[in-house]
Amino acid sequence: MEDSLRKALSEQQAAVDAQGGAVRELKASGAPKDAIDAAVQELNALKLEKASIEKQLQAALTNGNDNALSRDAFRQALVNTLERRLFYIPSFKIYRGVAGLYDYGPPGCAVKSNVLAFWRQHFVLEENMLEVDCPCVTPEIVLKASGHVDKFTDLMVKDEKTGTCYRADHLLKDFCKEKLEKDLTISGEKAAELKHILAVLDDLSAEELGGKIKEYGITAPDTKNPLSAPYPFNLMFQTSIGPSGLSPGYMRPETAQGIFVNFKDLYYYNGNKLPFAAAQIGQAFRNEISPRQGLLRVREFTLAEIEHFVDPDDKSHPKFSEVANLEFLMFPRGEQVSGQSAKRTVLGEAVSKGIVNNETLGYFIGRVYLFLTGLGIDKERLRFRQHLANEMAHYAADCWDAEIECSYGWIECVGIADRSAYDLRAHTDKSGVPLVAHEKFAEPREVEKLIIAPVKKELGLAFKGNQKMIVEALEAMSEKEAMEMKATLESTGEVGFHVCTLGKDVTITKKMLSISKEKKKEHQRVFTPSVIEPSFGIGRIIYCLYEHSFYTRPSKAGDEQLNVFRFPPLVAPIKCTVFPLVQNQQYEAVAKSIAKSLTAAGISYKIDITGTSIGKRYARTDELGVPLAITVDSTSSVTIRERDSKDQIRVSVEEVASVVKEVTDGQSTWADVLWRYPTHSSASVDE
Amino acid sequence: MEDSLRKALSEQQAAVDAQGGAVRELKASGAPKDAIDAAVQELNALKLEKASIEKQLQAALTNGNDNALSRDAFRQALVNTLERRLFYIPSFKIYRGVAGLYDYGPPGCAVKSNVLAFWRQHFVLEENMLEVDCPCVTPEIVLKASGHVDKFTDLMVKDEKTGTCYRADHLLKDFCKEKLEKDLTISGEKAAELKHILAVLDDLSAEELGGKIKEYGITAPDTKNPLSAPYPFNLMFQTSIGPSGLSPGYMRPETAQGIFVNFKDLYYYNGNKLPFAAAQIGQAFRNEISPRQGLLRVREFTLAEIEHFVDPDDKSHPKFSEVANLEFLMFPRGEQVSGQSAKRTVLGEAVSKGIVNNETLGYFIGRVYLFLTGLGIDKERLRFRQHLANEMAHYAADCWDAEIECSYGWIECVGIADRSAYDLRAHTDKSGVPLVAHEKFAEPREVEKLIIAPVKKELGLAFKGNQKMIVEALEAMSEKEAMEMKATLESTGEVGFHVCTLGKDVTITKKMLSISKEKKKEHQRVFTPSVIEPSFGIGRIIYCLYEHSFYTRPSKAGDEQLNVFRFPPLVAPIKCTVFPLVQNQQYEAVAKSIAKSLTAAGISYKIDITGTSIGKRYARTDELGVPLAITVDSTSSVTIRERDSKDQIRVSVEEVASVVKEVTDGQSTWADVLWRYPTHSSASVDE
Repeated sequence: MEDSLRKALSEQQAAVDAQGGAVRELKASGAPKDAIDAAVQELNALKLEKASIEKQLQAALTNGNDNALSRDAFRQALVNTLERRLFYIPSFKIYRGVAGLYDYGPPGCAVKSNVLAFWRQHFVLEENMLEVDCPCVTPEIVLKASGHVDKFTDLMVKDEKTGTCYRADHLLKDFCKEKLEKDLTISGEKAAELKHILAVLDDLSAEELGGKIKEYGITAPDTKNPLSAPYPFNLMFQTSIGPSGLSPGYMRPETAQGIFVNFKDLYYYNGNKLPFAAAQIGQAFRNEISPRQGLLRVREFTLAEIEHFVDPDDKSHPKFSEVANLEFLMFPRGEQVSGQSAKRTVLGEAVSKGIVNNETLGYFIGRVYLFLTGLGIDKERLRFRQHLANEMAHYAADCWDAEIECSYGWIECVGIADRSAYDLRAHTDKSGVPLVAHEKFAEPREVEKLIIAPVKKELGLAFKGNQKMIVEALEAMSEKEAMEMKATLESTGEVGFHVCTLGKDVTITKKMLSISKEKKKEHQRVFTPSVIEPSFGIGRIIYCLYEHSFYTRPSKAGDEQLNVFRFPPLVAPIKCTVFPLVQNQQYEAVAKSIAKSLTAAGISYKIDITGTSIGKRYARTDELGVPLAITVDSTSSVTIRERDSKDQIRVSVEEVASVVKEVTDGQSTWADVLWRYPTHSSASVDE
Repeated sequence: MEDSLRKALSEQQAAVDAQGGAVRELKASGAPKDAIDAAVQELNALKLEKASIEKQLQAALTNGNDNALSRDAFRQALVNTLERRLFYIPSFKIYRGVAGLYDYGPPGCAVKSNVLAFWRQHFVLEENMLEVDCPCVTPEIVLKASGHVDKFTDLMVKDEKTGTCYRADHLLKDFCKEKLEKDLTISGEKAAELKHILAVLDDLSAEELGGKIKEYGITAPDTKNPLSAPYPFNLMFQTSIGPSGLSPGYMRPETAQGIFVNFKDLYYYNGNKLPFAAAQIGQAFRNEISPRQGLLRVREFTLAEIEHFVDPDDKSHPKFSEVANLEFLMFPRGEQVSGQSAKRTVLGEAVSKGIVNNETLGYFIGRVYLFLTGLGIDKERLRFRQHLANEMAHYAADCWDAEIECSYGWIECVGIADRSAYDLRAHTDKSGVPLVAHEKFAEPREVEKLIIAPVKKELGLAFKGNQKMIVEALEAMSEKEAMEMKATLESTGEVGFHVCTLGKDVTITKKMLSISKEKKKEHQRVFTPSVIEPSFGIGRIIYCLYEHSFYTRPSKAGDEQLNVFRFPPLVAPIKCTVFPLVQNQQYEAVAKSIAKSLTAAGISYKIDITGTSIGKRYARTDELGVPLAITVDSTSSVTIRERDSKDQIRVSVEEVASVVKEVTDGQSTWADVLWRYPTHSSASVDE
């Protein structure tokens, strides 16, 4: 639509220009008035038509903007409620805050602790995972091994006069979006180019980003000063361990490394058996260049990570059948590349067709789906997107993100990656401690082992300084490659060989290496396990949950919009409230005895004995997402009101705690109890 | 004992010296042989006596050392068990670790999470506290206001050649202890001096510490090189927020500041009512100079802190009566100064006698006692020690530490301080945002207000640069001081006035200020609340709990010592184990069905179907502190064995989960169920 309009508009412009030229020519050549008038008339018609196309294009773009506006309005209403009710608080607010740092206030804290308790139940206890708790302060060598010291960077540009820093990709993104939304004159080709840049933004190199910034003449947004070329900025908070200043350390950017370095002990703890999983919940830190997107991009956040260690030769999962029939939105690589959208897929089929690499990865995708929807994430706004080849680390076997749609678009909230043996190998290499597993054979096995023996002297003579990399490449050959090379060498005496690390082909001759197979008796197999890593951004999940749970409805008088969070009881910060209908000692005594029975039943509640109208008190707790409200309007029985339906039932004082427990523990639904107890309707106590 | 022996020894030495002199004199003066022989005989007798005293002193000192040795052996056995069973792991072990950083392994993690859950239940839920969760990364201005940037330091000395850093007080402490334990020749006076230094070590200034180090000739322990003078080292991990390098930040040294800066929002959230408490559980960081004492002094740790805000004019507590009758070891200031020891005290009496400053402080002392003993801390090795005047910050009204005795001595695990209005005032001053509370009067009150109006011009003329400090000191006078000054000025025209901040007296004359009282109608009282802060070092509590719970007992064969943790079910990392007595499919099926019913009842368990002997399996879980073990030895009924008594009862398969739940939830004791079910005794299944 937008594309065709842009095309029509530029064709129309060309037609207008051409006709304008024709008119000028007619005038210059002293053509008859009739001819000139006719030409002018046609020019005006063309201009009118152009104006109409402009209007249509404007409307098409504005339509997008209107959506954006209503998204912004929704988000503003939500964020106002969240801040006013202290779900979160910008940290250090009285000192004007720090970008990217937020506190959880009391209800936010309760939601977070409910989400984490469910996570522990759903993953750690259900799967008997080994939970660990490692420090945030991490010595440099660990993060050197993991690659974070060298590669955990974003590209930054500096205002050349003031020194203010910006993320290079953000500036380019803003430029492209602004241009696409506001500039009617750009050609269809130009628009396509800008859209392409937005699509590949994450893949652009420093040079490419810098080139585009220069080409488009992008300047510092605050000052319009020229910008430096982009350069990498490491996103870890750096510090120094101990007083000497000689031991650099970082605040961990993820919790995973603490698990990897403990692999040996954990494997032993598990009786030297695979597979097993370790899990960790804890703080992680990223020193963002310029945090945006509120609660989604922050400098400190809670991660919950699982590292499931598995034999690379057997990634089946005994419990896969429990999730195989789940059906939800999946967005495999192929569909993304061919411009299709996510579609409902049966998980078992995705695994059997090889779209998902293996059963264990598939099992975790299914468990993540159950976890997120159990919290109250809308399943229509949840999809599993496979990483494109260029997004994925070279060592990863497969990787899927659980993305949740919110007002900021589709947000990555959980990453589920098969990282192969990369992490354990990296720490084995750096520490010299073998992080491996053993499979003892019931009886010794005769195995044929491939022996690749480079003759270093010959290789040294032939390749000098490159010898080391060629030796490594030869030794890294697969059995198939090696046997093919052996055959070629035996028949022709030499062979071309591509060395990735040199980026070129070299010629290998027969005397430079020997390739053979030997038979050996082996008692065990020693191997580096693969790791499958589901990694949860808890703060992002909670923010998306807020968006999916929030709605407004008119007050009874119709004079205002009331805010409600439709949290499931599992997540709700408080499970119920207790209100005496009017302020009197009798009702207060009943309220307090009910409160006592709620405490005994382990139900969190809030008691409100202020004289505020019952409608206002309901509205206040709806805004905290409290599922049930008990109103004391007699000394023998009370009403229980459900938040979303506003239905009320009448229950005896003795029973009320057990009914609330039944519903909030999830043993019964509200519909179940609604059926069992008399419903109550009273205009006076309704809002 | 030691003192009198040292005294006797040095007197005896003097007698020996004197007699030796006498003998020499007799010989020199050619005295008769009889006389000389008699004198020599007496000298030998004196020497013998001296040797005997030396032996006694040695024994007295060794006795202390023997205790120390058995303490060390106990600790070694404990620490071996803790490390082997992964209660904790030195962090980054494969990279040879980092001093002062530890991981919690699976059982340690479970214990920690049980301790924190109980803390939340016992404090946050029980008292309706407002829980918050703030970031660890903290901008400098916040910690400047709190005083940490300037004062959160330890004194450090450097090896002048190698640059290695040491804590100055540690070196002096080690020197004094070594001298006292190993050197028999030091005089009683010297011994007393060294003991005095050990007692006041924490109070010594840099100059005093440096002086003693010089006086005693203390050198670097590793190299014997000379040491630098002591200088302060700030214990916060420093970092930089954002990419500019212009925003210094620190990893928080405590969680409290996050609560103080949110006071205004939290007070509003609480309906603008006092008292209320906020609470926070989170990581805190101290960049220790050279961490010692294993798990007790670490660089990163979990704190659980409460800030209870209260009207300074009314520190009563409505629930104090619930703890007033508790009786436990208290160690008030007076007893410490007069060299007595802690004694059993009724909390209510300590408060009514004014030993504990106020009811709210007393209430928290009582609640902390219940919390710690509920976890399994031995109440005979728990005392509440009041801070001495010199230990306490100048603003603190009163401060008590819950100290737990372990192999390292009495360790501060919880601090309970009445910090008055200090923190809120400090942040009010620095941020300009008033962190105050309001008490609305039912009807306006006429109040007499003291007006102190310094005449700045006159003060400026008289005191120039010191004017500001004098004005502040004048304005800070209490009503009594001000009225006395007014009287003196009126009678004599001038008055001497001590200005603390200048450290001297100045003369104030009549024209320099006016002091008066005005009557005003006030509708409300505006004041800064006092804060009472219980602050829990979770890691220290857990370590002490390990020490108090650990014991060994001989195996049945008597050939080895078996380790046991007598954790209460509340704390135990796993509540029960399930063992098929022998490996067979029937028993395994029963074990699995029991496991399922345990999961349904929400009980954490471990199932062990290895063929290991049942005795070994019991020993393995005793070492994890698992309270109950279910052994499947038939398909209809099973045995439940209690960890400490090793008693066994026989229960039907259907009932077993509910019996385990009853005991581990604390609804029944083991004694209760032991009475209800047939006991089981079978040599074959016992260890």
